[in-house]
Amino acid sequence: MYLLIDEKGRQYLIRGDDDFHTNYGVISSSELLKKRPGSIIETQTGRKFFVLEPSMLDFIKKSKRGPQAITLKDCSLIASYSGIHPGSRVVDAGTGSGILAMFLASITCPEKLTTYEIREDFAEIAERNFEKGGIKNIKLKLKNIYEGIDERDLDVITLDLPEPWRVVEHAKRSLKPGGYLVSYSPSIEQSKRFYDRLDGFMSETVECIIRNWDMRVVRPHSRMIAHTAFITFARWLGSSVPR
Amino acid sequence: MYLLIDEKGRQYLIRGDDDFHTNYGVISSSELLKKRPGSIIETQTGRKFFVLEPSMLDFIKKSKRGPQAITLKDCSLIASYSGIHPGSRVVDAGTGSGILAMFLASITCPEKLTTYEIREDFAEIAERNFEKGGIKNIKLKLKNIYEGIDERDLDVITLDLPEPWRVVEHAKRSLKPGGYLVSYSPSIEQSKRFYDRLDGFMSETVECIIRNWDMRVVRPHSRMIAHTAFITFARWLGSSVPR
Amino acid sequence: MYLLIDEKGRQYLIRGDDDFHTNYGVISSSELLKKRPGSIIETQTGRKFFVLEPSMLDFIKKSKRGPQAITLKDCSLIASYSGIHPGSRVVDAGTGSGILAMFLASITCPEKLTTYEIREDFAEIAERNFEKGGIKNIKLKLKNIYEGIDERDLDVITLDLPEPWRVVEHAKRSLKPGGYLVSYSPSIEQSKRFYDRLDGFMSETVECIIRNWDMRVVRPHSRMIAHTAFITFARWLGSSVPR
Amino acid sequence: MYLLIDEKGRQYLIRGDDDFHTNYGVISSSELLKKRPGSIIETQTGRKFFVLEPSMLDFIKKSKRGPQAITLKDCSLIASYSGIHPGSRVVDAGTGSGILAMFLASITCPEKLTTYEIREDFAEIAERNFEKGGIKNIKLKLKNIYEGIDERDLDVITLDLPEPWRVVEHAKRSLKPGGYLVSYSPSIEQSKRFYDRLDGFMSETVECIIRNWDMRVVRPHSRMIAHTAFITFARWLGSSVPR
Repeated sequence: MYLLIDEKGRQYLIRGDDDFHTNYGVISSSELLKKRPGSIIETQTGRKFFVLEPSMLDFIKKSKRGPQAITLKDCSLIASYSGIHPGSRVVDAGTGSGILAMFLASITCPEKLTTYEIREDFAEIAERNFEKGGIKNIKLKLKNIYEGIDERDLDVITLDLPEPWRVVEHAKRSLKPGGYLVSYSPSIEQSKRFYDRLDGFMSETVECIIRNWDMRVVRPHSRMIAHTAFITFARWLGSSVPR
Repeated sequence: MYLLIDEKGRQYLIRGDDDFHTNYGVISSSELLKKRPGSIIETQTGRKFFVLEPSMLDFIKKSKRGPQAITLKDCSLIASYSGIHPGSRVVDAGTGSGILAMFLASITCPEKLTTYEIREDFAEIAERNFEKGGIKNIKLKLKNIYEGIDERDLDVITLDLPEPWRVVEHAKRSLKPGGYLVSYSPSIEQSKRFYDRLDGFMSETVECIIRNWDMRVVRPHSRMIAHTAFITFARWLGSSVPR
Repeated sequence: MYLLIDEKGRQYLIRGDDDFHTNYGVISSSELLKKRPGSIIETQTGRKFFVLEPSMLDFIKKSKRGPQAITLKDCSLIASYSGIHPGSRVVDAGTGSGILAMFLASITCPEKLTTYEIREDFAEIAERNFEKGGIKNIKLKLKNIYEGIDERDLDVITLDLPEPWRVVEHAKRSLKPGGYLVSYSPSIEQSKRFYDRLDGFMSETVECIIRNWDMRVVRPHSRMIAHTAFITFARWLGSSVPR
Repeated sequence: MYLLIDEKGRQYLIRGDDDFHTNYGVISSSELLKKRPGSIIETQTGRKFFVLEPSMLDFIKKSKRGPQAITLKDCSLIASYSGIHPGSRVVDAGTGSGILAMFLASITCPEKLTTYEIREDFAEIAERNFEKGGIKNIKLKLKNIYEGIDERDLDVITLDLPEPWRVVEHAKRSLKPGGYLVSYSPSIEQSKRFYDRLDGFMSETVECIIRNWDMRVVRPHSRMIAHTAFITFARWLGSSVPR
């Protein structure tokens, strides 16, 4: 696989086994084969492209995704605020296009991450994304997590579901004491309903807002993504204080 | 090591080899020794504490740090936007109290991360933090990174320095094509000066803002951290297009 | 009345009929009497103060206020998004310490603004603020607006109340077609409940966030006010489309 | 003039002397003439429109404007943070399409506001906007404010100019002690250069960010305007403390 970047910064992730047709001419497959990462290749019309070796992050950015797919900033926050690191035991649901699962699995590696999905069409998209990204440490289950979690002794459970509160009791049985149940919800009403069920957890709800700057003119860009989701980090304390 | 959490959510990281004196009475060391993670311990006055096994994240949060130490949200963004994962080859400078180095090393593990610092007093604080956190895959160098980078073939270089622009030429020789030079600067003028030197890189400058919600009353908390730093992610393209 | 500003930018609103004691010495009343706006006065220890004539805005900023009193940014938005101008007919409730009423009355002037309050202690604080600010075009009513609005043909009704939805039906009878019912609520749940009653209105709910910059070092200040309230602007259309 | 609002909330400002053609049929001029504000009119195909009397705010919102024209939130903040009220003496430059001048004049009314513009094409657009809005208390001068300000004893001077620092010395001669010089700049570098000249002023630089909520689903809208300008409020102290 190759990552090509044109002079305007547009990025293309290609296999390289066929010639690649751009708006500015053709990049020859046989030419590309000879190039090392960091070199420049030209189309037959002289347009230049940088040739790089794609990273896992490039695969994730270029994955096929639905309109509501989770953003990198939120993947990032989920991983760091719940302390995910190599070897962490993680369950994720629902899979959707698999972006969050891929991101987290790239950190837990080589530990396997399990992701639950009930829709077969989503599962197929996700499996293709995992394959393209060369990620092998994800196990996808076609199962409804509202009905239970098979895994035990987990460090983190991540939820991107319409009714996350239905997982809270299952999570108590599956998390290690000190483990995190994380829920990602676009609406604050969902978040509130989830929060109200978190007996025995210590929780925090946050939004992560990224503001991009245009450094040529030294000002923020005019438009930005204002909202993706509220993320609740609930740490399971392992037992409830009797009230 | 033990993480104790009181009923108000305050957290204490303790070794447990001595009795622990709180405002609400004493927690006995011999009692604590018998507790498993997820259980509750009481002071002699009956105040309850949850007993947990601390994670790497707990160590990082409780590390000794200076007034300007980097926050978790920024560590997180740096790691994810530059694609750091297990095995990534990373150089960091300056070390400061070592928070960013610890955070990144907990992901690159078992790959060793190298961190540069010129002040011996900071280096000592950082080394103690690494030891307390049990992090073994960091190498600290007492060296000025403005004078050069010894390492080659790096995936990421992270900078928290007053004059990050002085590292740009060194970075070109040390980064893999496609690798990231990341600079963390409180002031936008520093960021601009850094940006102006980034010939041959593709860059993005962002701020990360976290807004915390008080879910009992369903509103954002009244006060927040408004600013920590501007973070510039500069991807080295491996060669410059002649202009 | 005089506005004194010391060299650190701290501001003092004083009557000037007595000597004024500062941490840096005394400002003599007889000296002050001779000063014109824009001149400098010194304490007997040589500390300098700028002497200015206070504006309405200075009175409002220095008014006695409760802990939850509305901020200038929100007063400002309420006035402008509802199109308040000289001559606008406005009703406000509850008065609280009277900050919003004063701000709006300073614009509607000479048109009288009416403000409703049920608590006598608040009414007294507000009346004193109006008097100190020299604002004469406010009429304060000790009355519960949940029970009805006496005024008719209004341009704007502003609410800072725990149950703003109880005013919606009254507002329909009191607003001109095209007039605004504005509600200021700290919690999004209150805002939602208000919103759900707005049949026959066209509405918009916003937050106004002010970010202050420290221009000496060209970066935002580290801490900021993250949240005051959600403000809903509901424009009365004058009649409902039958569904 | 009439303000028509369709069932989706779209707004149309029309004179009403001709039939009005919409995507959903025609609104007859003679029908419209019989309607009072707050009533409903139908196209010949039965589509309903609310009929309202437009306010000054509606005229301002519908004014012809350039791509960079100032937003209502910023007009609002400028007026309130500088204490503009009925009777305030204000000079504005450059006029551009006249939005800010109109907004401020609608508050200073009946006091005349003076606005400076050097480009005749802009001046013409602005004059037409003033006429349409029925605003009579604005005097437009075809003059370069960098060369001086004719007016004296001003409460506020507002600048939307590429080089606002060139007005600082003129402002000192034209402002009352305690008056405000306000500069609106998209770039922080312009703001910094302006700030560095503000000897004898007390200043504050802010951004105003409005976040809109979608109350049907109780979440912020996905996209927002992230940046318009940095606004510096500089209060003239009337004399400088010798250093």
